[in-house]
Amino acid sequence: MNITSKPEDFHAADAYRTRLPGEERLTPRRDPVLWSDWTGDAPITRQEAAHYEEKGYLIRRNLFSDAELRLLIDTSLRLRGAGGPGAPADFVTEPGTDAVRTVFRLDTHSPVFARLAADKRLAGVARFLLGDEVCLHQSRLNYKPGFTGKEFYWHSDFETWHAEDGMPRMRAVSASVLLTDNSPLNGALMLVPGSHKTFVACRGETPKDNHKTSLQKQEVGVPGRDTIARMVAENGLDAATGPAGTVVFFDCNTLHGSNGNITPDPRSNAFFVFNAVSNALVAPFAADDPRPGHLANRDGARTIVPQGGRLTGA
Amino acid sequence: MNITSKPEDFHAADAYRTRLPGEERLTPRRDPVLWSDWTGDAPITRQEAAHYEEKGYLIRRNLFSDAELRLLIDTSLRLRGAGGPGAPADFVTEPGTDAVRTVFRLDTHSPVFARLAADKRLAGVARFLLGDEVCLHQSRLNYKPGFTGKEFYWHSDFETWHAEDGMPRMRAVSASVLLTDNSPLNGALMLVPGSHKTFVACRGETPKDNHKTSLQKQEVGVPGRDTIARMVAENGLDAATGPAGTVVFFDCNTLHGSNGNITPDPRSNAFFVFNAVSNALVAPFAADDPRPGHLANRDGARTIVPQGGRLTGA
Repeated sequence: MNITSKPEDFHAADAYRTRLPGEERLTPRRDPVLWSDWTGDAPITRQEAAHYEEKGYLIRRNLFSDAELRLLIDTSLRLRGAGGPGAPADFVTEPGTDAVRTVFRLDTHSPVFARLAADKRLAGVARFLLGDEVCLHQSRLNYKPGFTGKEFYWHSDFETWHAEDGMPRMRAVSASVLLTDNSPLNGALMLVPGSHKTFVACRGETPKDNHKTSLQKQEVGVPGRDTIARMVAENGLDAATGPAGTVVFFDCNTLHGSNGNITPDPRSNAFFVFNAVSNALVAPFAADDPRPGHLANRDGARTIVPQGGRLTGA
Repeated sequence: MNITSKPEDFHAADAYRTRLPGEERLTPRRDPVLWSDWTGDAPITRQEAAHYEEKGYLIRRNLFSDAELRLLIDTSLRLRGAGGPGAPADFVTEPGTDAVRTVFRLDTHSPVFARLAADKRLAGVARFLLGDEVCLHQSRLNYKPGFTGKEFYWHSDFETWHAEDGMPRMRAVSASVLLTDNSPLNGALMLVPGSHKTFVACRGETPKDNHKTSLQKQEVGVPGRDTIARMVAENGLDAATGPAGTVVFFDCNTLHGSNGNITPDPRSNAFFVFNAVSNALVAPFAADDPRPGHLANRDGARTIVPQGGRLTGA
């Protein structure tokens, strides 16, 4: 293993030091969760805002019409069919096949999904939660087949985004739009309520080009088993289940993961990470080189103007 | 791969030919599911009997007192602690560790679990379901850790027991006694309701010593994906969830499997396969050599005399 990051290289003003030699360290979150005061103009209810602040996530259902949902699903199928030899590098296939598993920079490959990202139901909510204008840190279309869907182990996104992408503070939120029905049995996203209030500074330094393997199997930047077990024992475990069209918002520091899936039912979602414009990326806090642009939109991140009205194919 | 079984070697009177060259073949079950007429003396309700017949399984909760459950759990922990160097071959450890994952011939290693197997709440129910005296075809204690629990792919037990153990007919039932709480999120047993009514004659011949790998990853004797998907589409999917102490009875031909488990919660159960004495094993129907005795109790299978009253440590 080629260890390239050293503690003394870290930024002086690092609010969340991580990838430390020695033991992992738990510290309280130093940032708000909900960055806006709730008023009657907010795009979510007072109860939803309180739930997000307390639990670190929010599941919203029935936001889209049948026609909108059909458009999103059809567009996702068409996009996945555009993989294969000659496809852009953003189209990641299953090893040994042409089956597209992930389409990165989703907003750049599809006007429909770009419009979805900017929709008030997504970007508008994100802007309220983060109390700032927002831009996209990352966007992707995910597809996990039935029968062979692999698990994704527990992690906080922020730990990686801070260490490897240089995201300074906890002021980002992910929105996952389910494009298939999700039940507890087909590998739904699992979240640990309340885990977003603690920063787990992980043990171990960042290997060079960690992102080349960490998307398959994350080895660095994950909390220890005792820590995960304690957080689950204290706060329980929730699963983001619901029919296609359900939207799951979760704070950048909420511990989450998903089980594998032997059921015949595949899972697919459109995934958008909104970052506050005031929280723009700097140099990585615990890695020598920043991750590539499809994982962390470093230079081209534009402020999103939230759009009202329905999604259309036009 | 060393192919040793040949179709022409099969028994003339084979009610369920399987491991065939060419395509898999679906045929209707040729045996009853419920072998007794229900009367007021039955050990389960009329509704439970009808459920078992229709769905192929039955989940019963709150059968044991707290003291009985404590005894079973404590005994299971003690048994698992008896692994390591010098332990009998029935104690199977995780690769590279002394952690016991399975204890085969459970009834021979523990008087408490032998008594549990014979309990009216297990053997008495099995005797009713099978309409015959019963013996143990297999018994084992299973332990799957949290965080790293692996999936177990879809299969019908009967297909293997018929092909490799020489079980002539569908007249056997498994009883799984949960020793930990099981939720849909920690890899609970999943069952396909109604799948027990169809025999899936599987494609492909039996490799020599198939059992040495099939317990880790079953490659032969599993239905094709299209068949599984169709059965699930037609009948849905159920999960055998419940608190520790829950007992799951399922017919030998009910399609079942389980997802992996990244949650901190381990799963453990005591597993007993009851066979009708009239359904005694013969030579394997689609393998040259029978599997070893800890997987298929061929010679030492004694008729069980169901016991009433509470389980005690004495």
